[in-house]
Amino acid sequence: MSDNATARVAAAYARIAEVDRPEIWITLRPQAELTAEAAEVDRRVAAGEPLPLAGLLVAVKDNVDVAGLPTTAACPEFAYPATVTAAAVDRLVDAGALVLGKTNLDQFATGLVGTRSPYGAVRHAEHPELISGGSSSGSAVAVALGIADIGVGTDTAGSGRVPAAFHGIVGIKASLGLVPAHGVVPACADYDAVTVFAAGLDLAVTAAAVMIGPDERDPRSRTWPADVRLAAGARPTVAIPDDLTPLSPAYRAAFIETVAALRDQGVTVREVDISPLLDAARLLYDGAIVAERYAAVGAFVDKGADGLDETVAGIISAAKELDAPSFAADLDTLTKAKAAANALLTGYDGLLLPTTTEHPTIAAVTADPVTINRRLGTYTNFCNLLDLAAVAVPGTPTADGLPFGVMVVVPTFADQLAVDLAARVTGTPAPLLVDTGVALAVFGAHLRGQPLHWQLEQLGARFAGEITTSDAYRLTALDTVPPKPGLVRHGDGLGAPIRGELFLVSPGGLGRFLAELPPPMALTSIELADGRSVVGFACTYDAALTATDITEHGGWVAYLQR
Amino acid sequence: MSDNATARVAAAYARIAEVDRPEIWITLRPQAELTAEAAEVDRRVAAGEPLPLAGLLVAVKDNVDVAGLPTTAACPEFAYPATVTAAAVDRLVDAGALVLGKTNLDQFATGLVGTRSPYGAVRHAEHPELISGGSSSGSAVAVALGIADIGVGTDTAGSGRVPAAFHGIVGIKASLGLVPAHGVVPACADYDAVTVFAAGLDLAVTAAAVMIGPDERDPRSRTWPADVRLAAGARPTVAIPDDLTPLSPAYRAAFIETVAALRDQGVTVREVDISPLLDAARLLYDGAIVAERYAAVGAFVDKGADGLDETVAGIISAAKELDAPSFAADLDTLTKAKAAANALLTGYDGLLLPTTTEHPTIAAVTADPVTINRRLGTYTNFCNLLDLAAVAVPGTPTADGLPFGVMVVVPTFADQLAVDLAARVTGTPAPLLVDTGVALAVFGAHLRGQPLHWQLEQLGARFAGEITTSDAYRLTALDTVPPKPGLVRHGDGLGAPIRGELFLVSPGGLGRFLAELPPPMALTSIELADGRSVVGFACTYDAALTATDITEHGGWVAYLQR
Repeated sequence: MSDNATARVAAAYARIAEVDRPEIWITLRPQAELTAEAAEVDRRVAAGEPLPLAGLLVAVKDNVDVAGLPTTAACPEFAYPATVTAAAVDRLVDAGALVLGKTNLDQFATGLVGTRSPYGAVRHAEHPELISGGSSSGSAVAVALGIADIGVGTDTAGSGRVPAAFHGIVGIKASLGLVPAHGVVPACADYDAVTVFAAGLDLAVTAAAVMIGPDERDPRSRTWPADVRLAAGARPTVAIPDDLTPLSPAYRAAFIETVAALRDQGVTVREVDISPLLDAARLLYDGAIVAERYAAVGAFVDKGADGLDETVAGIISAAKELDAPSFAADLDTLTKAKAAANALLTGYDGLLLPTTTEHPTIAAVTADPVTINRRLGTYTNFCNLLDLAAVAVPGTPTADGLPFGVMVVVPTFADQLAVDLAARVTGTPAPLLVDTGVALAVFGAHLRGQPLHWQLEQLGARFAGEITTSDAYRLTALDTVPPKPGLVRHGDGLGAPIRGELFLVSPGGLGRFLAELPPPMALTSIELADGRSVVGFACTYDAALTATDITEHGGWVAYLQR
Repeated sequence: MSDNATARVAAAYARIAEVDRPEIWITLRPQAELTAEAAEVDRRVAAGEPLPLAGLLVAVKDNVDVAGLPTTAACPEFAYPATVTAAAVDRLVDAGALVLGKTNLDQFATGLVGTRSPYGAVRHAEHPELISGGSSSGSAVAVALGIADIGVGTDTAGSGRVPAAFHGIVGIKASLGLVPAHGVVPACADYDAVTVFAAGLDLAVTAAAVMIGPDERDPRSRTWPADVRLAAGARPTVAIPDDLTPLSPAYRAAFIETVAALRDQGVTVREVDISPLLDAARLLYDGAIVAERYAAVGAFVDKGADGLDETVAGIISAAKELDAPSFAADLDTLTKAKAAANALLTGYDGLLLPTTTEHPTIAAVTADPVTINRRLGTYTNFCNLLDLAAVAVPGTPTADGLPFGVMVVVPTFADQLAVDLAARVTGTPAPLLVDTGVALAVFGAHLRGQPLHWQLEQLGARFAGEITTSDAYRLTALDTVPPKPGLVRHGDGLGAPIRGELFLVSPGGLGRFLAELPPPMALTSIELADGRSVVGFACTYDAALTATDITEHGGWVAYLQR
């Protein structure tokens, strides 16, 4: 990523020409426009502006508005000129990213195959006879081919995850409402998520973090709760399905290998019966909830435009005949299924699932456009219906060397746990998605490996590095059970740098921690050696007066090992 | 309430005989059973068991299960024997309350009048020619007549509030999901709340607090968020509707007087256009959402049992013909209306509304069973649809001396603010509904009237009384801007009792407060003179060493006024 934006744009258009995959794009922007925008980004970076996504190239699924470009939802007759850019894309651009164009999709985001489009079936990046997966097909392939750094997709039933699985890339479907759905053509408005693809977990999470945040134009917008959990356990427990029969033999073997690799890392894995989740998934297409799709675009579909995909139009039109009491009964079933899903996930850091069941050819899907598509959604369909979050990452490839994808599924707002577990799968560092944590410095019994550390784990606190205080502090040994140090501020130069650890904890977790803090411990603002001030431990005056000075050890662990 | 349970039971049955209102009860339990239960409660109280509702008598609406009694929902042919008591009622009983019996209601909780029942129209407690209001008619009248202390109701469109308004009693409809709906015959499952009536705000809130809490048998169960607000502002701002034309002349005058009385107390009142709320209300009966009523009991109603109320059956059966896409479109409209309602309420501590529009006679409602009922729900219908909470209390009576009721309406989980504002209306102390606050002791700049007190107000902290520390503390004056004291623990007997104030603050609020706390301030466990230990202010060692001792003043305010 060391290239400047101008060079990146030139490389992207060269790559577009090289791969010769016109079906990726419904609208590709003229190179000259991008070159001009890149020059402006390079100027801002040179001027010292902090742009976390400076010069990164974005492919936007064509059911998401970009001002100045048409939005087609892969139906030419449906197209309208967008005048306002979708909130999520706008935030990427604000962070320095450049929009290359609008990408092909399964029409009206209805499908998991990538073939349901009058703009052509989107072929797999490496194996053109295979499907790319959908509905966010073009965005995923643009990333997989190295054209775009970031692919913006949407995901109602798996559209932001299945194409990631087929391409060995990352797809993040955050808890509903975190990424605003403003500027998106609704598929099933209550269950639509805006998602992101990237080659690696780090960039995917960085982009998702940029896209997340409330927007008053999205009535379903939600924010992290005050007690959001900020980390999976240090020794996580992961649930997996006890029945892998829906998988193709190649995918079954790959899943088993992926799980084995996770076990080898010390992750505890337990088989669970996920049939309550799979049952709930049937409501999306078999139940009355598909009426939401009709409510969104049914009136248009009923007019029978030329460019309508036959399969898509059939699914949507059929919903017209559904009755409201059945819809109400389905919603009730769904509410109960949500509660059951949360109960099922209790006690686990996350649920690891194959992202999809098999990798079919375009020919097979063309011959049977409905059955295969349905099978592909076995593990993805229920996620949004049950208000769960998911991070899709590459697992162990198949014996044939094809990519195989897995998903970590977690309850609403436990997104960071999914990121952490996904990082275990990919063997990469776990990036930070949630930005609401408060830094808390600890110096004694709450350090990792010390007797009270479990309190921080219980609150979902996240280890954020080793730290050293400024030289204003002296360390003392207090007369407590268990033994604890007291960090005592004497003043600049009157102490020594003291070693500790930094954690991030939610505001609610910090408040609960303080509420349970026994005397003589206190929390105050602590000055670190690097100049930062963070919340951290101190002790009361009387305890400090009588405690034994152990500053010479430079830290509690060194003192214990003296 | 000084009588023991046995005496209370005897008095209740005497009162039942005296008032001669058989239509209140669908099932009245035999006095002997209650007498035996009362003896047991008296024994437990004598043994020192803490029972907050010891010997209080409860009337339970007959769409809420009580084990051993039939549940009829006011339809004899629908009746089933309940084997498990509803969670909310169970909690009242666990707290020492005694269930007198099951009360009459508008059939299937469909109505706001109290006349739609084959068990007879429930007459108003004082003016039998007037309606009691419904659908929780029997429970409200049992409380209004002094038979029951607590009335359990349900409220989908106003049923827990309209009868309170007609009787000058209190009705609390908490945010959806706080009181579990387990064991309740659904009316519109997504919008049903279990409610409580009592003569005064204090008991109503106490009972509601007992009823609130998660129950895994209710899939819609919710709990207070970690950053729940615990108080209305000390100088609250209240919104009122800018158009009172829906009100009868008598109610209009009473509302204006109620508002004037509130203004006289220093409450700021501003007129707002509430038409977005009124528009949303139409979805409950005019839109497809009534299909939820069909989903609940439609199959039964379609069979055409003898005891069906004609009006109720007509409303429910009509929903069968509604289509799913319209339902989906209505849900979408509702989601947008929710966001608009929250925007409308932003900047206000609450919205004060007339609970209902007029007080009709039974004869008038019999002559026109639909139009009047609909008018009565003008201000109540939208509340659950938009996920708002409401507390209904008596306002200024009408010129004719009839009760007139008002409601304080607030966003989800801002229930405590509604209680606080309702207490302003009734001129009584504001009881505590939310039990998740952490006690925080302050001694200086955060005291009421001091320069940083606004920080606590901003976090929704609640004043909980004046306090004094144990004699282990010395007070110092720190060299800070603004000036602050440092409370320094020296040890038992080495200081003096120091005056301060106690606040309750949510865990999330406390965490945010700590995150912003500048040096040299610290928070620690503080011992109070009464033996309690609470989170409270301290300061760092170096600051304590150099600060001026002002212990002799006994508190910061006294020192400032020296």
